[in-house]
Amino acid sequence: MEVEPIGIIWSPFKEPKNTPIQPVFAEDTEGTVEVFAPFRDGLQDLDGFDRIWLIYLLHRASKVQMLVTPFRDTCVRGVFATRAPCHPNAIGMSAVRIVKVENGRIQVAGIDVLDGTPLLDIKPYNPAFDSFPDSRAGWYDLNREDRTHADDRFEVKKRDS
Amino acid sequence: MEVEPIGIIWSPFKEPKNTPIQPVFAEDTEGTVEVFAPFRDGLQDLDGFDRIWLIYLLHRASKVQMLVTPFRDTCVRGVFATRAPCHPNAIGMSAVRIVKVENGRIQVAGIDVLDGTPLLDIKPYNPAFDSFPDSRAGWYDLNREDRTHADDRFEVKKRDS
Repeated sequence: MEVEPIGIIWSPFKEPKNTPIQPVFAEDTEGTVEVFAPFRDGLQDLDGFDRIWLIYLLHRASKVQMLVTPFRDTCVRGVFATRAPCHPNAIGMSAVRIVKVENGRIQVAGIDVLDGTPLLDIKPYNPAFDSFPDSRAGWYDLNREDRTHADDRFEVKKRDS
Repeated sequence: MEVEPIGIIWSPFKEPKNTPIQPVFAEDTEGTVEVFAPFRDGLQDLDGFDRIWLIYLLHRASKVQMLVTPFRDTCVRGVFATRAPCHPNAIGMSAVRIVKVENGRIQVAGIDVLDGTPLLDIKPYNPAFDSFPDSRAGWYDLNREDRTHADDRFEVKKRDS
């Protein structure tokens, strides 16, 4: 099945290295979600939400790997138990804060993606559907590594599959 | 860009009509996530998590529409401010509970997808990244329509784009 970008995400991060690994580690860093003209009518009513999910292509993810040492741990884990970029379908998701919606562009805060990232979808963040504060989080709960920004371990130069 | 299914989601729901519209409305309904053999090593370490995100194709979504009347409201909204299936890239996401992980199959509870849904990705649910309980949710917060299960408004027979 084909997916087609519906827009582009612009951010201050030009390289994987030192890019925040999640919106919670990006703090107030702002970015812009540019939505292509045919899709702009679909942005109506977004301004009543504090957050949106951005669904996007991890266009510079390294090769697919089933076992990875994630940024927040010191040992190897199954890739589906991590948010590492090298999943078989390199689709990323980030819950970012809306700052402003105007003229087909969404100003967002807490951006954790690379500049020029292809946007696939936007969904509203609804805590009734998305928020489970007491959910156990496996190896993350062990807090063995406090890294908040990427290094080069999953960089595109290594992608060969 | 091409995406390829990495598995199939099996559920009790054969038709869009009367399928729960979100996991929170599916209660304890169980389903099975079958992961194809080449990807099974990536399931290691999932059993420490209460929930996972399933990312999947909404393979029976109706035609793309920029304005829709969502199941939980009585008037038209921009499609990106809704979780309706008719987004330009028909990618769904659901936070479901893990019951058991065994032999490349994940037994899950709170399943809200159609039987035979193509699976694209699995990510661990981590409240530190995903849980924002106080996030304002726009028109959802008005509680104008209490529908919890789908009707036929977004059914595939209408898909023609």
